[in-house]
Amino acid sequence: MEYTMIATWKMSYDGIGLAKEALEKGCSVKEAIRIAIQNVEEREEFISVGHGGLPNIDGHVQLDAAYMDGDTLDFGGIIEVEDIKSPIAVAQDLCGLKCNCLLSGKGAESYAKKKGFPFENHLCESSKKRWEEKKKEDIEDIEELQAYEGHDTVCVLGKVKKHLGVGVSTSGLFMKQEGRVGDSPIIGSGFYADSLIGCAAATGLGEDIMRGCLSLRVVDKMAEGKHVQEAVNEVLDAHIKRMALMKKDCDAISLIAMDKDGNCAASTNICEFPFVVLQDNDIKLFVATYKEGMHNVFEADETWLKQYKGD
Amino acid sequence: MEYTMIATWKMSYDGIGLAKEALEKGCSVKEAIRIAIQNVEEREEFISVGHGGLPNIDGHVQLDAAYMDGDTLDFGGIIEVEDIKSPIAVAQDLCGLKCNCLLSGKGAESYAKKKGFPFENHLCESSKKRWEEKKKEDIEDIEELQAYEGHDTVCVLGKVKKHLGVGVSTSGLFMKQEGRVGDSPIIGSGFYADSLIGCAAATGLGEDIMRGCLSLRVVDKMAEGKHVQEAVNEVLDAHIKRMALMKKDCDAISLIAMDKDGNCAASTNICEFPFVVLQDNDIKLFVATYKEGMHNVFEADETWLKQYKGD
Repeated sequence: MEYTMIATWKMSYDGIGLAKEALEKGCSVKEAIRIAIQNVEEREEFISVGHGGLPNIDGHVQLDAAYMDGDTLDFGGIIEVEDIKSPIAVAQDLCGLKCNCLLSGKGAESYAKKKGFPFENHLCESSKKRWEEKKKEDIEDIEELQAYEGHDTVCVLGKVKKHLGVGVSTSGLFMKQEGRVGDSPIIGSGFYADSLIGCAAATGLGEDIMRGCLSLRVVDKMAEGKHVQEAVNEVLDAHIKRMALMKKDCDAISLIAMDKDGNCAASTNICEFPFVVLQDNDIKLFVATYKEGMHNVFEADETWLKQYKGD
Repeated sequence: MEYTMIATWKMSYDGIGLAKEALEKGCSVKEAIRIAIQNVEEREEFISVGHGGLPNIDGHVQLDAAYMDGDTLDFGGIIEVEDIKSPIAVAQDLCGLKCNCLLSGKGAESYAKKKGFPFENHLCESSKKRWEEKKKEDIEDIEELQAYEGHDTVCVLGKVKKHLGVGVSTSGLFMKQEGRVGDSPIIGSGFYADSLIGCAAATGLGEDIMRGCLSLRVVDKMAEGKHVQEAVNEVLDAHIKRMALMKKDCDAISLIAMDKDGNCAASTNICEFPFVVLQDNDIKLFVATYKEGMHNVFEADETWLKQYKGD
């Protein structure tokens, strides 16, 4: 098993296919992750990442992305940037700097411009229309509006030989406030990788993920010797339990993880969370489920695919 | 022991004194932390926090702050904001929101304006002069410049009865790139609090702190049953060791922590890291030291105070 990948949501399937082709030609884990994520960033039909992403409350598409190298613990990230064509490419470029590797807003955009990264207006007709329709709705409670939909991040974990990496890219919460930062560019919450142990990433309501720094906790759980599937389930269950102590429901959270040997797992607190695994040269779509407090994972078949409406 | 506080650097001493007065009148942990931090934010002579803070490479003072409530795991933070008079006040105001509790740049400034928080130009004559002098230096390696000085964050941990909280405020790295985000506003790295376990915060080179999500790891170490002093030492030593595996020196890092019973500790990898403790109605200045891989803590006396040149 020379290389392994795991990625969030069905939308990552084609990108993982392209990454597989590149891996067969000997590309690095960093390149494979970039290729997989860029396929999602570029495609307008995937409305929560990159081009055509979900706008914020003011109608702007503000994007987050990050990358972490499990060998060096170097990371790079950009927070709330507009019009950068490929956020993951810029995050990867920042990864390796001793300082100034996490940049926000205008500063991140200036960096990308200086380094010659291409720019593009991500507010497509489709995303503009989606925003206009949402604005028309009579919304009493702005908080209610912001919590309930549109927070699907593409997260990709990769392993080439013993080298782990993790990349994430998202437009964040639909109708979020200007400048709102979710978990995706936040190390330990949205992602973490250590080639000596394993790596993990999260998708869902960023604020609830950050409250528990879930990606780091999954990696630390593996460091304690837990199997990767136990690690994701136990970290998620402990967080749900801690939130319940405060009489708080945990909003949607899904986790993916891989240990240093390439064993993969996912866990969720929503009904169905699809994820893609590339292992032993095979790409498969799996579904993690959560029902009455029980976690399960199955491989998606034609029947499941026909009924699934998400990305 | 009704209340306990611990705070980074000597500069927090007076603020802890003011917080003590408020605590004696029955204020909350949130108020006590705000009072302690605002004293540092307001005073121009403390050059790494709030008013008169260290400018970035373009001569702008860009500030970060965050607050976390250990009872609810709610948190609030602002990233790279300019001209907000008291960053900690705005971070505390955001703490409690289900979503949009971490805001960056213009979005954070708009929020503060909308909520009526006062604004003030933080670039004083003294900070402008400091920036102009640094600009004159012939700097070959911009990375070298950015790593070596000016990253003193005020972090305050507090406990009132069983309620824990943590607040942080900083202007970040001197001569940082525009939009650079350090560990301070990043949950798990710059701060973490859980009233059922304990709380922790970090100061030093943010990028090296974030690589290890050190504040969360200290709290999780206490959850495993480690004494607070063991927790900070072991987390810091493990991180230094992990960095050394990559032939990387760990830049300056200092940690403070408090367990749920109010026991306090600090650990550092610099020669001398002063911190302030309010315990049993007494305020004392301690110094954590690091020499040949050994950690120590002593109470500062007049002789030590006379030779100390930092804040």
